[in-house]
Amino acid sequence: MRKIFNEEMRQVADDMEQMAGAVSRAIHTSGQALLGPDLQAAQEVIDGDQAIDQLEASVIDQCVQLLAKQSPVATDLRVVVSTLRLAATFERMGDLSRHIAEAVRRSYPDSPLPPEARDLFERMQAFLNTLADRLVDMMSERNTKVAEQIIVDDDQLDQLHQQTFDLALSDQWQGSKQQMIDLVLLARFMERIGDHGVSAARRVVYIVSGFDPSKDPKDLEDID
Amino acid sequence: MRKIFNEEMRQVADDMEQMAGAVSRAIHTSGQALLGPDLQAAQEVIDGDQAIDQLEASVIDQCVQLLAKQSPVATDLRVVVSTLRLAATFERMGDLSRHIAEAVRRSYPDSPLPPEARDLFERMQAFLNTLADRLVDMMSERNTKVAEQIIVDDDQLDQLHQQTFDLALSDQWQGSKQQMIDLVLLARFMERIGDHGVSAARRVVYIVSGFDPSKDPKDLEDID
Repeated sequence: MRKIFNEEMRQVADDMEQMAGAVSRAIHTSGQALLGPDLQAAQEVIDGDQAIDQLEASVIDQCVQLLAKQSPVATDLRVVVSTLRLAATFERMGDLSRHIAEAVRRSYPDSPLPPEARDLFERMQAFLNTLADRLVDMMSERNTKVAEQIIVDDDQLDQLHQQTFDLALSDQWQGSKQQMIDLVLLARFMERIGDHGVSAARRVVYIVSGFDPSKDPKDLEDID
Repeated sequence: MRKIFNEEMRQVADDMEQMAGAVSRAIHTSGQALLGPDLQAAQEVIDGDQAIDQLEASVIDQCVQLLAKQSPVATDLRVVVSTLRLAATFERMGDLSRHIAEAVRRSYPDSPLPPEARDLFERMQAFLNTLADRLVDMMSERNTKVAEQIIVDDDQLDQLHQQTFDLALSDQWQGSKQQMIDLVLLARFMERIGDHGVSAARRVVYIVSGFDPSKDPKDLEDID
């Protein structure tokens, strides 16, 4: 029984790794779309989101089958329940990347952002690209050090997010009203990707370490 | 065993009903805070969010215990897994109400919105108040008719959300830049409460009807 559980759980872990890879690509490519603006990249993210959704459905399916057939308890049960939640988190990161790509497509061939916002969004995207790479490392190695780094660094993204508001409120801002709307939404989407990254990292730390399942970390601290 | 499962599941259902009630109050009260502006109402929502988080933790705990002790299969298993996801959805609706309350507190004694946005936000809030009441009915009676009504009506909120952008882009708009930022964020929070309401309604339809667990409805269609 134990052997079957481990084998089936390895298959789920493979799907989760694939999911992390797909989400990482979506994050990188939506950034490329935004900073271009690059319509082809935007379309790639939009079209690719379905594959992420399907991976989530597959993970849910496998986890439910596992619960039904193997009736895991203790640590095994905790891993399955946390994996379900982790898959939902990844799925939402894919959605957010798609939202960014959709904003790019809406305003193309213009950029959704005015030139004075470029530097700030480049820095936010650089942060998210690092996060995306770390997600892949974290999942392929169940690496809690990488996960902890994700959690610690999130403040930087929150600061950049705050700076987007400061910019919009400053005299430096020359953008249109539509660009103001897009700036607020895009910055929010990017901040949310970071928040979900933290949520995913907490969950991996939780899966790898060995707590009481009732102490399952809250999905997201202060976010929707 | 069956009897124990039903009894324990009834306790979870009680907590879920309580959660729906707390979320409903948060939605109503954050609307009152926004449309006042009413600082006391805002503070009430902010302070009350912890109780919603604790209910979610309690539901997770009970569901994990149920999975461990009773090893439910088939429909019972589907109900437990869906309940876990439903609790996460409610928890996020509480977070979003808190975000609205925090925006009110930030700008108090001023309103975060200019007068020309009032009518539109009153209509959005009226929609959300109806949604909040329906959530309570849906959970207390496992009423799929109410759930279906929630799903069908969501288009109305999406249209109102779109109108907030139209207003901000029109000549009618007299608000400050800060109010433009707040309008975009507040409208997004409110639209997201609606989306999560739809997600909760789909899940209840799913729990009450009898599908294959692998066909678990996607949490949220096109949202983070």
